[in-house]
Amino acid sequence: MTTAPKALKDGAEEQITRAIEAFETGWNTHDLAAGFAFFAEDADFVNVVGQWWRGRFEIVERLGACHADRFRDSTLRITSVSIRFLRFDVAVVHLTWTLAGDRGPDGRGLPLRRGIITLTTSRYKGRWSFDAAQNTEQFIPSTT
Amino acid sequence: MTTAPKALKDGAEEQITRAIEAFETGWNTHDLAAGFAFFAEDADFVNVVGQWWRGRFEIVERLGACHADRFRDSTLRITSVSIRFLRFDVAVVHLTWTLAGDRGPDGRGLPLRRGIITLTTSRYKGRWSFDAAQNTEQFIPSTT
Repeated sequence: MTTAPKALKDGAEEQITRAIEAFETGWNTHDLAAGFAFFAEDADFVNVVGQWWRGRFEIVERLGACHADRFRDSTLRITSVSIRFLRFDVAVVHLTWTLAGDRGPDGRGLPLRRGIITLTTSRYKGRWSFDAAQNTEQFIPSTT
Repeated sequence: MTTAPKALKDGAEEQITRAIEAFETGWNTHDLAAGFAFFAEDADFVNVVGQWWRGRFEIVERLGACHADRFRDSTLRITSVSIRFLRFDVAVVHLTWTLAGDRGPDGRGLPLRRGIITLTTSRYKGRWSFDAAQNTEQFIPSTT
């Protein structure tokens, strides 16, 4: 596909990496507005049970409800990040995660969970943001 | 984001829709090379258990093994398609599906399954193809 000039790509990778760090930090401080600040206003997010949230407002609201409850003591770790450019201003990101401290419906702690997210990201007016994300839990030995 | 000229967008929607139909038909005739013909050679596919397949060859090979086994009598139905353009030549597609006739490890038929796929698609040299896809099973009442 299109090969991005190196300097442009380096700057892009740095910005995308910062956006992912903001997501991780926002989750762990339970500040989802900050965690999703790099998601586009009209971003799509499909969660691990296949619910399709449309727009940053809905994402933050629905996930916020979980953070007030089962995720209140949870810790998210991004364990790998892979960025593949389709254009100099469009990329696909794969990230894997672990989640510690999640709780079941009875309030008891759950074992470590893990999963993988595919994100589509693009640059608009000099700023990279995530347009779409889908999250799937990994119940199998990791192959990545 | 960028607004695509109407004529370009109509042609694009038509081509993307045909690519999705090819996927459905390829699944149901167990001809995965045809089903994934509109996936880029370096396409990423994350399946419902979070396995990350890299490249069309791996996708066709791994899914082909399932079609020789549990999916041999399965029927896939695409139940909804939504296309959102990020650029005139890049789009995010959400599609929902049902799968009838899947079998468990003991060979017995499973109830109807359903899920949702997010695909990133782009046009290169006049041809739309899928660059990345992630599939998640929906265990919840559909909200779409």
